[in-house]
Amino acid sequence: MTRAQLAIDRDRLWSDLMTLGVIGGTAAGGSYRPALSPADRAGRALFAHWAQEAGLALRIDAIGNMFARREGTDPTLPPVVIGSHLDTQMPGGRFDGPLGVLAGLEVARAMTRAGLATRHPVEIVNWTNEEGARFQPGVMGSAVYAGQLALGEVLERRDSTGVRLSDEMANARPGLSGIADAPLPGPVPHRYLELHIEQSARLETEGQDIAMVTRSSAMCSGYVSLHGENGHTQTLPMSRRRNALAAAAELILEIEKIGAGAEPDGMVGVSVIENWPNNRVNVPHLTRMSWAVVHLDAGERDRMVARIEAAVAAIRDARGLEITLEHRHYRAPVAFDQGLVTTGLEVAARLGLGAITMPTLTAHDALSLAGLCPTALIFVPCRGGVSHSEAEWCSPEQAANGARLLAEMARQAAG
Amino acid sequence: MTRAQLAIDRDRLWSDLMTLGVIGGTAAGGSYRPALSPADRAGRALFAHWAQEAGLALRIDAIGNMFARREGTDPTLPPVVIGSHLDTQMPGGRFDGPLGVLAGLEVARAMTRAGLATRHPVEIVNWTNEEGARFQPGVMGSAVYAGQLALGEVLERRDSTGVRLSDEMANARPGLSGIADAPLPGPVPHRYLELHIEQSARLETEGQDIAMVTRSSAMCSGYVSLHGENGHTQTLPMSRRRNALAAAAELILEIEKIGAGAEPDGMVGVSVIENWPNNRVNVPHLTRMSWAVVHLDAGERDRMVARIEAAVAAIRDARGLEITLEHRHYRAPVAFDQGLVTTGLEVAARLGLGAITMPTLTAHDALSLAGLCPTALIFVPCRGGVSHSEAEWCSPEQAANGARLLAEMARQAAG
Repeated sequence: MTRAQLAIDRDRLWSDLMTLGVIGGTAAGGSYRPALSPADRAGRALFAHWAQEAGLALRIDAIGNMFARREGTDPTLPPVVIGSHLDTQMPGGRFDGPLGVLAGLEVARAMTRAGLATRHPVEIVNWTNEEGARFQPGVMGSAVYAGQLALGEVLERRDSTGVRLSDEMANARPGLSGIADAPLPGPVPHRYLELHIEQSARLETEGQDIAMVTRSSAMCSGYVSLHGENGHTQTLPMSRRRNALAAAAELILEIEKIGAGAEPDGMVGVSVIENWPNNRVNVPHLTRMSWAVVHLDAGERDRMVARIEAAVAAIRDARGLEITLEHRHYRAPVAFDQGLVTTGLEVAARLGLGAITMPTLTAHDALSLAGLCPTALIFVPCRGGVSHSEAEWCSPEQAANGARLLAEMARQAAG
Repeated sequence: MTRAQLAIDRDRLWSDLMTLGVIGGTAAGGSYRPALSPADRAGRALFAHWAQEAGLALRIDAIGNMFARREGTDPTLPPVVIGSHLDTQMPGGRFDGPLGVLAGLEVARAMTRAGLATRHPVEIVNWTNEEGARFQPGVMGSAVYAGQLALGEVLERRDSTGVRLSDEMANARPGLSGIADAPLPGPVPHRYLELHIEQSARLETEGQDIAMVTRSSAMCSGYVSLHGENGHTQTLPMSRRRNALAAAAELILEIEKIGAGAEPDGMVGVSVIENWPNNRVNVPHLTRMSWAVVHLDAGERDRMVARIEAAVAAIRDARGLEITLEHRHYRAPVAFDQGLVTTGLEVAARLGLGAITMPTLTAHDALSLAGLCPTALIFVPCRGGVSHSEAEWCSPEQAANGARLLAEMARQAAG
């Protein structure tokens, strides 16, 4: 490429990120926009407004995925799709998700400012409910788009207060005119490009600007139910108790040890706990908790799961409780398109950005798309590796570097 | 006393216990009647019906305590009050509470069948919300009666779903005519007698029928809040996490050890846990849990609390979290009336019942009354020491033995 680089407006991108961040903004500087909540609806309206302002044509599908299209010189060609998600954890930060969508928007604006005509259309997408914070599972919108999840099934999902997702779909559609319907499952894109903060600290530690992601990890997640026995906490002898919560505590620490032993290529999480009757004077008779293991190597992932099973058996025997591992869900590793990894490294070199390759431990919408079309997942640094947190941060320059790379990759892909 | 014993109708008492037990009955044979719930209201209506059927005059006070009065030959004398509570844990059993109320009712019926006229009135009481399962604190009705808790304050308490206690007070009043108002704080009784299942297994182990309770334990309870940091469970390195739930797990196990070391005179409980954000992919940043220690010796109780504080400090230092012990509540030991203990032992001997003395580790309404008037707390066996449980049980004969003792003590006290 001998043409001048597309000019990314760093300040505009940063302004958009900060503006969106105050929608559902928290006192600690994070954002609280669970999928299809009133705050998420406001964030979606903002994206729709900015997209229309940029002259893009909006479409929305039945799971609420939003597409903002910059037409190509050959509208019959499949689009280059760029995006991520605008929903957040509860609470989350300002970058996990929004960076990929708003950088895509800035790429489209930069193309228009440069008077660039591409053969392929370029579409900026906001995938519904990537986080899975309110409605499970996560990466929902992109998985339905890719035909990996059935629309009818996910519409029946309920949040923790019993609200059904289908009843919240009215919140998916911003109250603006000119929004057309999009088909579902979605058409196969020409390419899919997603920019995201790294969420671990390797780029920061190594002083690099960009990572091209080569593959994802092997994952296994599920729930454990521990069935003990009711009793009075101030009269039932300690030795006679079959205490579900104490058994859960022991299992949490065992799983933590398994995770510490698997670093840096693997880790664990126990994040959700529910306890019954959860009353002050009752020995808990039922405790349920989530667990998850990730590892870059599927065999190591399986060995971690086997160690958890062994810990469950040991605690069951020692404490005389029933313990069941339920709803186990496996995710196989996904390899990203090698050609796009190479392209990304070349573009980065041309832009004077330091770039490396790395795997990702966690899921992104890009995993859903990788089965459909050549897909690239691009990381920029994330301060301290902290994400899913109000403290999540990257700098204006780091965000703009990602957008610059995205712009050149998109231009090249769109022809 | 040379008069014949009052004749307790064992089968009627048992029938009443089993009938009440099906109100809010669970499939596993327990009962689920949290204070002022629809099921508790049905249980209260049943008690009111039985009391009126037995010719007793009903009154109810502003916290919902129910009094069923058998008039004395001198109505100006303070009554001998017999009772306990009809509310249960969530779920609870058929005896913890109901035994003391329904045995009192059967005592009143036995007096009437025998044509007995007592100088003092005899009142059977159902104290509101002894369990503290839905609204906290427990022993609420008796503590308000005794002036230890302010009515205005407890009426503002809310259950976990936000329902205010004052809004549920309509459920305290059965829809029967002839129920008068009772004053609050309540008048000082002549004597207070409470029959209860033991809730531990000493009577069963020693083959005894009756225990006269001499004193209560020293207690300290409260909540611990563990403040960690948000993060992504699949990307944030294990070594960088400040995981509130994992820290709580460690503390739960430390407290369990402290309890095991304090048996048989002391024990601990960690029963309630709440966790934020309680989402599958977020390192928990806040976990809150209840804790309680009881010990017969107040100095030992304080040493147990000090050990918990030391465990908190160690976990705080090792894991770099903030941990706060909050809402600490101390309960001093209460000594029961020695004269009534002696009377109980004498009556038991006359009835041919094996009787011992023992302390109680946990609280009862009798603790509230002990500061007002001479008070007796009487235990009968409890199978396996299991209570606050659907498996809670005592036999018809054991229940009737308690009622027989109660009848003779009441007759003697009422003159």
